[in-house]
Amino acid sequence: MDDRQAQLDALLATPTTPTRRPTVPALEEALYRVHPVLDHGFVRVIDYMGDDAAIVQAARVSYGVGTRSVNDDRGLIRYLMRHRHTTPFEMNEIKLHIKLPIFIARQWIRHRTANVNEYSARYSILDREFYLPSPEHLAVQSSTNRQGRGDHLTPAQAAHVLHLLRRDATATYDTYQHLLNEDAAGNAADPDRPMLARELARMNLTLNTYTQWYWKIDLHNLLHFLSLRIDAHAQYEIRAYAQVMADLTRAWVPLAWEAFEDYRLGGATLSRHELDILQRALAGEPVDALIANSRLSAREKRELREKLKLPPT
Amino acid sequence: MDDRQAQLDALLATPTTPTRRPTVPALEEALYRVHPVLDHGFVRVIDYMGDDAAIVQAARVSYGVGTRSVNDDRGLIRYLMRHRHTTPFEMNEIKLHIKLPIFIARQWIRHRTANVNEYSARYSILDREFYLPSPEHLAVQSSTNRQGRGDHLTPAQAAHVLHLLRRDATATYDTYQHLLNEDAAGNAADPDRPMLARELARMNLTLNTYTQWYWKIDLHNLLHFLSLRIDAHAQYEIRAYAQVMADLTRAWVPLAWEAFEDYRLGGATLSRHELDILQRALAGEPVDALIANSRLSAREKRELREKLKLPPT
Amino acid sequence: MDDRQAQLDALLATPTTPTRRPTVPALEEALYRVHPVLDHGFVRVIDYMGDDAAIVQAARVSYGVGTRSVNDDRGLIRYLMRHRHTTPFEMNEIKLHIKLPIFIARQWIRHRTANVNEYSARYSILDREFYLPSPEHLAVQSSTNRQGRGDHLTPAQAAHVLHLLRRDATATYDTYQHLLNEDAAGNAADPDRPMLARELARMNLTLNTYTQWYWKIDLHNLLHFLSLRIDAHAQYEIRAYAQVMADLTRAWVPLAWEAFEDYRLGGATLSRHELDILQRALAGEPVDALIANSRLSAREKRELREKLKLPPT
Amino acid sequence: MDDRQAQLDALLATPTTPTRRPTVPALEEALYRVHPVLDHGFVRVIDYMGDDAAIVQAARVSYGVGTRSVNDDRGLIRYLMRHRHTTPFEMNEIKLHIKLPIFIARQWIRHRTANVNEYSARYSILDREFYLPSPEHLAVQSSTNRQGRGDHLTPAQAAHVLHLLRRDATATYDTYQHLLNEDAAGNAADPDRPMLARELARMNLTLNTYTQWYWKIDLHNLLHFLSLRIDAHAQYEIRAYAQVMADLTRAWVPLAWEAFEDYRLGGATLSRHELDILQRALAGEPVDALIANSRLSAREKRELREKLKLPPT
Repeated sequence: MDDRQAQLDALLATPTTPTRRPTVPALEEALYRVHPVLDHGFVRVIDYMGDDAAIVQAARVSYGVGTRSVNDDRGLIRYLMRHRHTTPFEMNEIKLHIKLPIFIARQWIRHRTANVNEYSARYSILDREFYLPSPEHLAVQSSTNRQGRGDHLTPAQAAHVLHLLRRDATATYDTYQHLLNEDAAGNAADPDRPMLARELARMNLTLNTYTQWYWKIDLHNLLHFLSLRIDAHAQYEIRAYAQVMADLTRAWVPLAWEAFEDYRLGGATLSRHELDILQRALAGEPVDALIANSRLSAREKRELREKLKLPPT
Repeated sequence: MDDRQAQLDALLATPTTPTRRPTVPALEEALYRVHPVLDHGFVRVIDYMGDDAAIVQAARVSYGVGTRSVNDDRGLIRYLMRHRHTTPFEMNEIKLHIKLPIFIARQWIRHRTANVNEYSARYSILDREFYLPSPEHLAVQSSTNRQGRGDHLTPAQAAHVLHLLRRDATATYDTYQHLLNEDAAGNAADPDRPMLARELARMNLTLNTYTQWYWKIDLHNLLHFLSLRIDAHAQYEIRAYAQVMADLTRAWVPLAWEAFEDYRLGGATLSRHELDILQRALAGEPVDALIANSRLSAREKRELREKLKLPPT
Repeated sequence: MDDRQAQLDALLATPTTPTRRPTVPALEEALYRVHPVLDHGFVRVIDYMGDDAAIVQAARVSYGVGTRSVNDDRGLIRYLMRHRHTTPFEMNEIKLHIKLPIFIARQWIRHRTANVNEYSARYSILDREFYLPSPEHLAVQSSTNRQGRGDHLTPAQAAHVLHLLRRDATATYDTYQHLLNEDAAGNAADPDRPMLARELARMNLTLNTYTQWYWKIDLHNLLHFLSLRIDAHAQYEIRAYAQVMADLTRAWVPLAWEAFEDYRLGGATLSRHELDILQRALAGEPVDALIANSRLSAREKRELREKLKLPPT
Repeated sequence: MDDRQAQLDALLATPTTPTRRPTVPALEEALYRVHPVLDHGFVRVIDYMGDDAAIVQAARVSYGVGTRSVNDDRGLIRYLMRHRHTTPFEMNEIKLHIKLPIFIARQWIRHRTANVNEYSARYSILDREFYLPSPEHLAVQSSTNRQGRGDHLTPAQAAHVLHLLRRDATATYDTYQHLLNEDAAGNAADPDRPMLARELARMNLTLNTYTQWYWKIDLHNLLHFLSLRIDAHAQYEIRAYAQVMADLTRAWVPLAWEAFEDYRLGGATLSRHELDILQRALAGEPVDALIANSRLSAREKRELREKLKLPPT
């Protein structure tokens, strides 16, 4: 993959060209640069289309002369976000180059609204690079959440786990190379053995092997991705990518990002029963009793108290 | 809509800014400019992402070091087009501003892979602009093709049709304005009559009224759209837009366009039976008899002769 | 269109066949029957795939043996709805036959996640059927909401509006027929005049002309459609369809519908600032002052009071 | 996963219920049954919507009374397939339960038009099942095709490769179980060691581990999937699934399948230059010289001769 690195480094060195398209200086600054994630992964911006003003411009096409009164970009963007008028946000697009472990790629690809070009292990040979968590990210299975992590491992426990992960990834990659039997010139390293087809040899790799792809998505769907993947319930490893992408998104469309934080990330959803409890609490009934006596499940009661910053009972 | 025109004219006048993103001088030149279509319609490019080299770059991510041998951009693009490796073409994106009659917008919107922001007649008032065909595009219902046009009208017949279309569009628009009852300041033009809700009044407009939208699509889906809408079987009015968009696409990605013409637009598809006929004809059997005696339908026989430039029988 | 009516009536009369697929007796009962909407429109169920148990079954594939503890279908469906685990709801599908005015079809088609087969006015001739609102649905443009309706018209005003709508729709349809110039046998009604191509003649019709289509969608996207179109801000005419479809959906998947009402339709979303106000109000600060002194816009303040059933200030 | 097996076996045993929906006896017969693929994989039909007649019915909605002349279902389906009128085929839907190796699941999921519920290794524990190719499917990297297989291995070579694949998959699964440290009751097998979170432990598995999912897709997109994955250039392992799905599709919609074979699978595409060569060959010029002197690439020349069944030069 060194050739591609060299190619992209060349892009960083090329002089700028003039354009009449919308340009975001803060994102131009980030363009092509590697933003590291996990131990070998990265995110980098390859291209983008549009800025905050482009969202506004698209919305004004829809609303035409009828929107004279909303004459402020920030106000209009907040209005659109609040009322879930999503199409103007679809008018911006970003293209990222991402390197990530395969088991995270498998979660990621479930978002079907993006365009993807992934490194093909049918055509090419994957590098000897696999994800090993930092010791502080190793944890036991959560006892309360079937898909989460519980207590952290002790240093000794973590060292043991990392030893096993490194040992197996190394051993399976060694076998992969043995099966490929290919030297630097593309010939058989050992002429007495076959060079197994790449599409077959790859099946021996572990799921923490790194892959990479170009991933292109519109701003609306990017924000949806981030709302799910920044969330505390998302697996740590994909959250680490989402956090870097959030910073890049803020640099790209600061007004849209602010609205997204106010109306989506920092907000909350209430069910019909939760709303009923709140209405009655504000009308004077004691909130603790209302929750305790409600038909909410035990888990819903706990989560509602957290949402409302009520002390645990 | 004059405000938006002024806004966009301002864009044409703004100085350029520097970017390190891929830039296509020929498309920069076309940016924001009106390309007229039909009597009141237009296409204009609002933004674009990527160029021919960006297609190649995305493909090389997929193929990695394994593609060293394909060292030529044009060759790789032709390879991708020929083998229908479509994802690298999805990595380019274009955003257009289009003004078009509603009955054409209804055909157009069936392509679901684009992002759209349409002028809303719930919010705003549509202009008094409706499509009237040029006399040479008026034709009778085809007797051989249930969805096509046959012989052209005589000048007198065309004048009569255009008189009726103009009369009805004018009359229904007059009623629309009467129902809206809104003066330039947004107040009731006639204070004794109600100002009917815009979302209701619009139902009185005819289908040749013009609407407009921002339409954003990736290059792969744009080419698919053009392959269907440039086709001789497409309705003339949408073909007129497709032709203008084809010219813009050629300016944007000349190598991809050339490959598209060679492998898609200018090519042909053969069925299993057609292929069998050809194989036998090249092996020495008389092609006329092969076609005549085949199990193809009469229409398939005629179309095969046309594809092969054989004289009609 | 009488032929198709006869065809479908035949379906109603056919005997049942046995199947091992999931079957919903309540929806079987509704199958093929016309559910009238507006003056000439309808919704009818043509086919469906899955039931409440199919949602659960799909979820259990995802969660495997790890979900033994959630042993109750209703509980699992509520859990999925509450946590927006949307993919199990995508596993159910419904196919509807809908007849609706063109200006509503234009709103409807913006939902891109459905499959559609619309009656083609390039191929065929549209019936003389156009939507005329009931007098009680005629209203003036809202002064507070740019896309809504305000006060109702008086009976005299309504009668005038309906007179104009009927007059124009009738006149333009007469012209349409004159241009088509086609008799019942498909020949020229007036042999001295041309039979204008259908794809051209249709442009003279008004937007309240009825069209029809088959529309197929999965349950997740259907619920999303309904959440937007049942909403009080949706145009009345599309809301009328959504209401009929809601009843059919309740008959089809009663547990999913109940969860949808509790967690989506009957719930509410709070922004970061609204949530902060609530937390402080429940901690003892006076809610009226908190709202009044907040940085919410006037409109947000009013809407928050409504959400919380606080009396207007 | 035994519970789910038992659940589905129960479905096989349940009595049928009556329905007025379209029913396909041949597919009812296949319903819920396991169709084995590879060493541990399978395909089974969970549900379906529509039949050949449903395609016709949807098409007739589009074409209305204008299609009286096409009164034959088979003829109409062939017409639709030939002219790529794809929307009527989208009106049929099928839901499959598929068990497949992860590296094949990664290829498969790139088809974005389906609904998917995959077994989650965050929630649940994957079985000790991994794909080991049959000896006859082991082959060296192709020297002519960067993504394909060349010569087969000798029995001794194959045995060596399978030994390595089995050894590594077994060893990494052993580590996986060691890290999970979970006994049959869900408690720690070794109380002195931590039970590593499932979402972490899974990263140690190899890519030939089996996963499973529910996969729901419409007929048009299924045929597109099959056209790509039945192809000789597709990886053998995914082709094995495609072949089983092709048989099921033929049982489900025999008329659509026949048309698909005639117009898509068994047909061919010609480029502009290839078409020109053919036209001139049929007009009397010698085809060998035309091809040899054309501007086609060496590979295109070879492939054209194959398409036309001309002997190699």
